Amino acid sequence: MIYFDNGATTFPKPRSVLNAVNRALRLYGANPGRGGHSMSLKASEIMYECRGNAAKLFDVESPDKIIFTYNCTTALNYVIKGILKKGDHAVISSLEHNAVVRPLEKLKEQGVDYSVAEYSYNDDETIDNFRNAIRPNTKLVICTHASNVFGVRLPVERIAALCKIHGVLFCVDAAQSAGVVPVSLKESGIDFLCTAGHKGLYGPMGTGILAINSEYLPDDIIQGGTGSYSLELKQPKILPDRYESGTPNLPGIAGLNEGIKFVLNRTESAIERHENQLAKLLYKGLNDTQGVELYVDMLKHSKCLPVVSFNVENLDSEETAQILDKKFGISVRAGLHCAPLAHKFFKTEERGTVRAVLSVFSDYRQVDYFISSVNKICKYKRVKKGCN
Amino acid sequence: MIYFDNGATTFPKPRSVLNAVNRALRLYGANPGRGGHSMSLKASEIMYECRGNAAKLFDVESPDKIIFTYNCTTALNYVIKGILKKGDHAVISSLEHNAVVRPLEKLKEQGVDYSVAEYSYNDDETIDNFRNAIRPNTKLVICTHASNVFGVRLPVERIAALCKIHGVLFCVDAAQSAGVVPVSLKESGIDFLCTAGHKGLYGPMGTGILAINSEYLPDDIIQGGTGSYSLELKQPKILPDRYESGTPNLPGIAGLNEGIKFVLNRTESAIERHENQLAKLLYKGLNDTQGVELYVDMLKHSKCLPVVSFNVENLDSEETAQILDKKFGISVRAGLHCAPLAHKFFKTEERGTVRAVLSVFSDYRQVDYFISSVNKICKYKRVKKGCN
Repeated sequence: MIYFDNGATTFPKPRSVLNAVNRALRLYGANPGRGGHSMSLKASEIMYECRGNAAKLFDVESPDKIIFTYNCTTALNYVIKGILKKGDHAVISSLEHNAVVRPLEKLKEQGVDYSVAEYSYNDDETIDNFRNAIRPNTKLVICTHASNVFGVRLPVERIAALCKIHGVLFCVDAAQSAGVVPVSLKESGIDFLCTAGHKGLYGPMGTGILAINSEYLPDDIIQGGTGSYSLELKQPKILPDRYESGTPNLPGIAGLNEGIKFVLNRTESAIERHENQLAKLLYKGLNDTQGVELYVDMLKHSKCLPVVSFNVENLDSEETAQILDKKFGISVRAGLHCAPLAHKFFKTEERGTVRAVLSVFSDYRQVDYFISSVNKICKYKRVKKGCN
Repeated sequence: MIYFDNGATTFPKPRSVLNAVNRALRLYGANPGRGGHSMSLKASEIMYECRGNAAKLFDVESPDKIIFTYNCTTALNYVIKGILKKGDHAVISSLEHNAVVRPLEKLKEQGVDYSVAEYSYNDDETIDNFRNAIRPNTKLVICTHASNVFGVRLPVERIAALCKIHGVLFCVDAAQSAGVVPVSLKESGIDFLCTAGHKGLYGPMGTGILAINSEYLPDDIIQGGTGSYSLELKQPKILPDRYESGTPNLPGIAGLNEGIKFVLNRTESAIERHENQLAKLLYKGLNDTQGVELYVDMLKHSKCLPVVSFNVENLDSEETAQILDKKFGISVRAGLHCAPLAHKFFKTEERGTVRAVLSVFSDYRQVDYFISSVNKICKYKRVKKGCN
């Protein structure tokens, strides 16, 4: 079995991640921050260690500014809903995921508006588009670090600088890039970074992170018990408690902690190098295959993530994925990938795309097999077409 | 080590739960509902199976009306924020957790008001208090099934009937009771039930459930990718997608599935019988110990959950818990338990309480050891006091 659906969630996970989840469940499965006994303290310790490692990875001032959430979507909702109020305006890119678009569409009901700045292969043009989209009432710019469908990257450091000039808050959706593309919140001035724990950070599903690098704090969207200031009927304002109500996903966070340590040890640049080499081979192989449509020239746009979206001529993307699964034992995702704007931009909103995403565990052999499998599908299609 | 902090999270978990989490991580750790390949379909299957088992446990019409959340707090926020709008009024009991009170306090900023109906040992009085608190603009009644600090239960079936008469929606916080006290949503007419997956349902932390038994659906609070209707910029209205944005906690839900099956197999009434027998022994033993203060007469109020809150004379609750942990290897929670209203009601808001909560894995030997340990603390305190 070959798993190239790492854009949805990475698989396999490092052994240390599985062991950590297992240990958390078996040895210190107590509620962190809600008891003074040894097991609960051990649980709190692991959470704090994970905050520290995430703060290190994203270069955030303090572990307390790492907020654990259910997933990246929740983190994005916290930022978007916590900042934008009636009369406010936001700017997003034309590559955004529904995790950004749908909360904004919802906020329209409350008098919040947003504009879409077109992505361009030319960074200067992208920056111009963002600049032109900013209005006097723009309060927040949100954009993905890299498209989850096409892998193209946005110049987030430059957008951060633009936002600083205009006094606008800036949030990056790093769901697809975290663990692959290094980012420093302190250096770049990105105010908020939201990411999934279960993709490039190799943690289990059920983990997300909101990293804060801003003095301005979003309003809290979810309130409840925090294990702190229990007599107060109001949500406490201290971090991370303000944004972490109720029992956290301790086993998941214990796993995420090991996932982040795995990334820190290997380094993101080494991971990026490995994955990009393979992605380029994959791209080249598919590009040389008659009957394959590709959307982004990965050899020309070398800063792409290891995400290869394609289609086989005359085949629905879902159909191609089905054949890859059933006949060749290859897992990929097909369809629309929850990113309608990106599909419109690349004109794939009708068919969707087949998306192959690599991980640190992918290897040359797998890429070869993948290319030859797609090759066989294309050949079979051509033969079949010839017979008709 | 004796773990009596099952009110915060149950420990240990059944072996089947640990195995299911492990299997989900190792064998089918793909994103459910976001791919058509075998691993993703297997993941979706497990989620659907868990929905079915939860629907069976709570007697809900359809598995689609089981919503998976991060925790019970999130589920409660979904109901409270999704229903109450400016000008609306809610009624809660005087035993509520901060997971209910804090979201309501937040909504005050938006012109929502709430009243507190006093709990009484006499169910008729409790019902009268709820009836008197309902106003013409009351839209929602929320109350805990049982106090997380004192174990006393509210007559939720009767409150549900009252709500039906007044045309008011009714939500039960079953964080502490689910898996111990049987409840039928269809029969009782409870509209919404929120619960944690990691307490009496024996799932891992990071799991919560919102069970819906109402035609009226709360507005959605969090929006994002659902893997469905991907071209739509608006959140889809179908269930469960509407309330489940972003990647779910698949390994957690796989574990929860086994936890619920464990409860269904043992039956809640057998679990309740076992835990209550032990809790009564524990209560009796502590009641016979000189220097122990107890708050609810468990022998008189036989419908209590297996939750025993107490204090040792002249000792802070945290101090008692510390001694139990360090000297006797016993894990309990002390302090305020995130339920300020309940502590005010029982006049323990200054000291908090030491809380011992049993699980299906607790046994007589543990209860005996617990009682003798508290006994030793009391004796030591008395001797020490005598020396002074």
